[in-house]
Amino acid sequence: MTLEVVSLDPTPDQLRYTFGGGGEPLLRVQPGTVVELTTEDCFGGRVRTVEDLPTRVCEFPYLNPVTGPVHVEGAEPGDTLAVHVIDIAPARDWAVSTTFPHFGALTATHETAMLHDPLEEVVWVYEVDREAGTCLFRPRRGGPEVELPLDCMHGTLGVAPAAGQVFMSITPAAHGGNMDTPELRAGTTVYLGVNVPGAQLSLGDGHCRQGEGEVCGTAVEAAMRTVVVVDLIKGGAPAWPRLENDEFLMSTGSVRPLEDAYRVSQRDLVGWAAELAGWDVLDAYQLVSQAGLAPVGNVVDTNYTMVAKLPKRFLPGAAAFDGVHARLRETGAAYLSQR
Amino acid sequence: MTLEVVSLDPTPDQLRYTFGGGGEPLLRVQPGTVVELTTEDCFGGRVRTVEDLPTRVCEFPYLNPVTGPVHVEGAEPGDTLAVHVIDIAPARDWAVSTTFPHFGALTATHETAMLHDPLEEVVWVYEVDREAGTCLFRPRRGGPEVELPLDCMHGTLGVAPAAGQVFMSITPAAHGGNMDTPELRAGTTVYLGVNVPGAQLSLGDGHCRQGEGEVCGTAVEAAMRTVVVVDLIKGGAPAWPRLENDEFLMSTGSVRPLEDAYRVSQRDLVGWAAELAGWDVLDAYQLVSQAGLAPVGNVVDTNYTMVAKLPKRFLPGAAAFDGVHARLRETGAAYLSQR
Amino acid sequence: MTLEVVSLDPTPDQLRYTFGGGGEPLLRVQPGTVVELTTEDCFGGRVRTVEDLPTRVCEFPYLNPVTGPVHVEGAEPGDTLAVHVIDIAPARDWAVSTTFPHFGALTATHETAMLHDPLEEVVWVYEVDREAGTCLFRPRRGGPEVELPLDCMHGTLGVAPAAGQVFMSITPAAHGGNMDTPELRAGTTVYLGVNVPGAQLSLGDGHCRQGEGEVCGTAVEAAMRTVVVVDLIKGGAPAWPRLENDEFLMSTGSVRPLEDAYRVSQRDLVGWAAELAGWDVLDAYQLVSQAGLAPVGNVVDTNYTMVAKLPKRFLPGAAAFDGVHARLRETGAAYLSQR
Amino acid sequence: MTLEVVSLDPTPDQLRYTFGGGGEPLLRVQPGTVVELTTEDCFGGRVRTVEDLPTRVCEFPYLNPVTGPVHVEGAEPGDTLAVHVIDIAPARDWAVSTTFPHFGALTATHETAMLHDPLEEVVWVYEVDREAGTCLFRPRRGGPEVELPLDCMHGTLGVAPAAGQVFMSITPAAHGGNMDTPELRAGTTVYLGVNVPGAQLSLGDGHCRQGEGEVCGTAVEAAMRTVVVVDLIKGGAPAWPRLENDEFLMSTGSVRPLEDAYRVSQRDLVGWAAELAGWDVLDAYQLVSQAGLAPVGNVVDTNYTMVAKLPKRFLPGAAAFDGVHARLRETGAAYLSQR
Repeated sequence: MTLEVVSLDPTPDQLRYTFGGGGEPLLRVQPGTVVELTTEDCFGGRVRTVEDLPTRVCEFPYLNPVTGPVHVEGAEPGDTLAVHVIDIAPARDWAVSTTFPHFGALTATHETAMLHDPLEEVVWVYEVDREAGTCLFRPRRGGPEVELPLDCMHGTLGVAPAAGQVFMSITPAAHGGNMDTPELRAGTTVYLGVNVPGAQLSLGDGHCRQGEGEVCGTAVEAAMRTVVVVDLIKGGAPAWPRLENDEFLMSTGSVRPLEDAYRVSQRDLVGWAAELAGWDVLDAYQLVSQAGLAPVGNVVDTNYTMVAKLPKRFLPGAAAFDGVHARLRETGAAYLSQR
Repeated sequence: MTLEVVSLDPTPDQLRYTFGGGGEPLLRVQPGTVVELTTEDCFGGRVRTVEDLPTRVCEFPYLNPVTGPVHVEGAEPGDTLAVHVIDIAPARDWAVSTTFPHFGALTATHETAMLHDPLEEVVWVYEVDREAGTCLFRPRRGGPEVELPLDCMHGTLGVAPAAGQVFMSITPAAHGGNMDTPELRAGTTVYLGVNVPGAQLSLGDGHCRQGEGEVCGTAVEAAMRTVVVVDLIKGGAPAWPRLENDEFLMSTGSVRPLEDAYRVSQRDLVGWAAELAGWDVLDAYQLVSQAGLAPVGNVVDTNYTMVAKLPKRFLPGAAAFDGVHARLRETGAAYLSQR
Repeated sequence: MTLEVVSLDPTPDQLRYTFGGGGEPLLRVQPGTVVELTTEDCFGGRVRTVEDLPTRVCEFPYLNPVTGPVHVEGAEPGDTLAVHVIDIAPARDWAVSTTFPHFGALTATHETAMLHDPLEEVVWVYEVDREAGTCLFRPRRGGPEVELPLDCMHGTLGVAPAAGQVFMSITPAAHGGNMDTPELRAGTTVYLGVNVPGAQLSLGDGHCRQGEGEVCGTAVEAAMRTVVVVDLIKGGAPAWPRLENDEFLMSTGSVRPLEDAYRVSQRDLVGWAAELAGWDVLDAYQLVSQAGLAPVGNVVDTNYTMVAKLPKRFLPGAAAFDGVHARLRETGAAYLSQR
Repeated sequence: MTLEVVSLDPTPDQLRYTFGGGGEPLLRVQPGTVVELTTEDCFGGRVRTVEDLPTRVCEFPYLNPVTGPVHVEGAEPGDTLAVHVIDIAPARDWAVSTTFPHFGALTATHETAMLHDPLEEVVWVYEVDREAGTCLFRPRRGGPEVELPLDCMHGTLGVAPAAGQVFMSITPAAHGGNMDTPELRAGTTVYLGVNVPGAQLSLGDGHCRQGEGEVCGTAVEAAMRTVVVVDLIKGGAPAWPRLENDEFLMSTGSVRPLEDAYRVSQRDLVGWAAELAGWDVLDAYQLVSQAGLAPVGNVVDTNYTMVAKLPKRFLPGAAAFDGVHARLRETGAAYLSQR
């Protein structure tokens, strides 16, 4: 298997902070290309010690930088971009997490507005041991340390939004963006509806791991060395981002309130299952009701994200998007075996 | 190990439809007693064929019958009732699921009120194969059948509410009730705050399996033969139901909107982890943010239910509620070995 | 006009704290009877000075006492109870309001659970001048005092719930209860669906005035001398409480999230308008969209309450509930002229 | 009084569909300038008869055109733009309203996703009588017609968003946009935080009148001849749009769920009142709790809008934004007297 492999390692001033908005793409690739890229962490790498409070070292809106956009040749509105994640590896031997004033699920925010003072701003620095596959949680005020397994993922991945809109990179919506779901790990293919020529793929916000909901507002944030393979399906654009791995089909929804995110993701999964299995939609509704999973993505961003998952073994013989996941899985295996 | 084992097999007219409300308990037991009991399905066993539409054969408010209440001797307000589920087995070789007018997550309801006509009322009958451990999904309008693994659970388990309140059995709230989480399976211990003398435990709404969210409104509904062991911890009443199995600590929250259910469950888990590990609450917030799971319980009942889960391996040395789960696990093992 | 007038002045130990739950009614009346009654304030009269913090002087669940239940002879499930408020007058020359830990719309609560400490608990005592028709706001920490006009209302009015349920008096739902809408003032008729024989009407939680939403959690709370006339319409039970005054028809909805309360109230109003005017439901939807008002009731109680209002002048010739409001208005006028 | 008066009457191809996004402003004005402008209706004027179903004659995303942007000289990020509405008059003798598939508060939508087919798409054409000050509602399927008073307003008014974002004109948020509140009528001053040089003011979506919530999704939609006077306050940018008329101060919040929109608007009003009166924030919280109003703006757009209102007579001596409303009111009076 001959692989087309290109690299994308943006300089700090090349980082972007929005989805959409034009400007020159950082890279142009043909469908089928493997892209080795680097991403900076959500703090732009400025939070390095427990003294580096984000409100002091970071400056709005220069948060959550993304790498991209990547222009995928031939992608037109209505097409489906498939992005298969081959590998995500921490770029440094440390990562950080923080509280942030008026951000998170268990605090008053600018939108769940209250009269409370913000919670204390605190930084946690994690030691990352890539060999051992762990990151070390050190409580700031005593008590046991905990070694947590690495489970690397990207919080943010998306394309340019529809209707000429430009969204901050911290917003998740129909274009993808900052969905913050742990499901977006290596081995997963993301399907995104294309809204503009070239799709304009960007990604960032690497996490060494993240709990479901990202309840404090930030994960184990890390710069990453990431490898993806990008492919294109003509037509078939899903209304909301979909994911697939070897075991599950997944639909997402990113809106508020959280029950609407649940509704969007489940509605999409029901329709997808009906189409793949040849069921009536009420039959698919029934099957998903008994066999579907519903983990939370995030409950902290400008939209909340829910994931609806269905084991592929309950859809025998069905191949989503013409089996592109399986093909990209092979590309990924070929790449990794050659590396 | 000598076990105290009693049976509870209510006649149809002994079934109850509320939590709270007094009346004589069906059973009085000492803490430590194993109770073998039967529960009817949520339709009172009246939906048996695809012609038995619930709106024709069932009568409000005689839905979701529960078995109980069981008076636990010595239980006083402020105590903690521990209910360990030893076994849940389908009582029949069939189970049912249905849509129901204006009930479910992907339909207008009495509360998410709209101008739509209800979705079609449809019944699915599942063949239950206890030997094979499966239940068979038969689509009503063609397409592949699917064998689903049995994963039996109770949708409804709770005690009498606080403040003299009486709730329909279909309501989940701080007293437990109709939480509809797949986590309430055999091997799990449920902790409930006691509000009235004797706690007044009831349970029902057995499911052969259920997806997260119970999106169509009903699971694979079945009458069950269930075995629990009931224990009592003086004091320590949790504000919301907690669950524990060999792998996870779990907090629940049952309110609307769904993000508030998420907040309640995560807030409780953060406080619980802080207490068990000896961490400051912000340190526990951080750990849960990176290591917690957040599956949906239900998004269809009068309150929505979220579950917050933390792997116990990240809380080394900690034993919740003085290790009662481990002890009841042994009781369960002893019972099963003697059966 | 000969009026049947009876009095109800409960002793402290006769006050109730729930809707439903049986026990003997405090009073039995025939439809058409005028009832002169007294209600205690939501703190049971225990908060009298700025030193009387509610958490010190009050005891859960003995909050929000109601006067009743009143058994209305002949009321059967499915009937409609009409309660016309003739007069509400403060019983004392003072009233109080407070913050309360973890209660209110701009604070973390037990349901919108967060990690914040509660806001400070503060009491405000208002001077009530019945002659001048004012209550005096005195800021606790300086700045101008403000004379506010009296606009007396009851936060809580309802009947026994359906399905044998018992709810704390602080809960608003389909049975009425703690709706906390400023619309429930003198001159207004409330329509409630009857769930149990005799309806079992109770009311309380008098407010000298209240902003829309009751954002801090409490209004200008006062014991009241109130006069109502009670009437009965056979059948026609509305699903949710409705209100009528000389100018408006009003539907209510009390659920969470707030948009669902909006949906319930608007859905009911659309159906009601269609029925009264003889319009198709989509035509009524259109008219309400252009002519309806939507003030908030409360955003602080266990359910949130929205009111949907339609000016009666846009429904020419229509008389809701057979014109009972106009008749009870006359009864009220006759009573007031004779007093 | 010498008034600077300019006109802005865009051609169809000059209409915009976003806030933000650069491009040349249509007009540049000095602070203090009166602008006479025209706006097209939300359907771009294409729905003219009951046969003109929006899904047939309109094309996404060419909905809800706005007139602008107007560059206000000297406006810098952090400043406050004051836009006083002097007059809004229907440009034609007809207006329209419609249902629209999966749009509105009493229907499944793309975000409150369900399995229902959409409600029927229906158009209502209103006769507008500018002399009489009425618009005539004609039910499509019989029943009484209703003359409704004109109460003209703009659903959409805003500036370029922060952080380089571009939002569709149908989105209400911190930049203003499609707030759809009936409060935005002649005599009202809108205060908007400036995010980019020149502020880039646009407006559109004129309504002959609108109910609170705009429950069916559209108001009595009309092209308008509108006159505003634009002014600039250096600094003092409010976080969310504020409104002022002769009687009320008003804060807005546009987020989901609706209780968060309520929280945002009330939180802002509490802080504003505290600042103007010199009260402690808890004292202002108390006063707003008793004296504030909370009408719904919209419950149909991509964000929901709530308005928090406080009568200015309860804030004696206070002048918001240095009394600019009173001054612009005079400008408006001078303009009208000279016209």
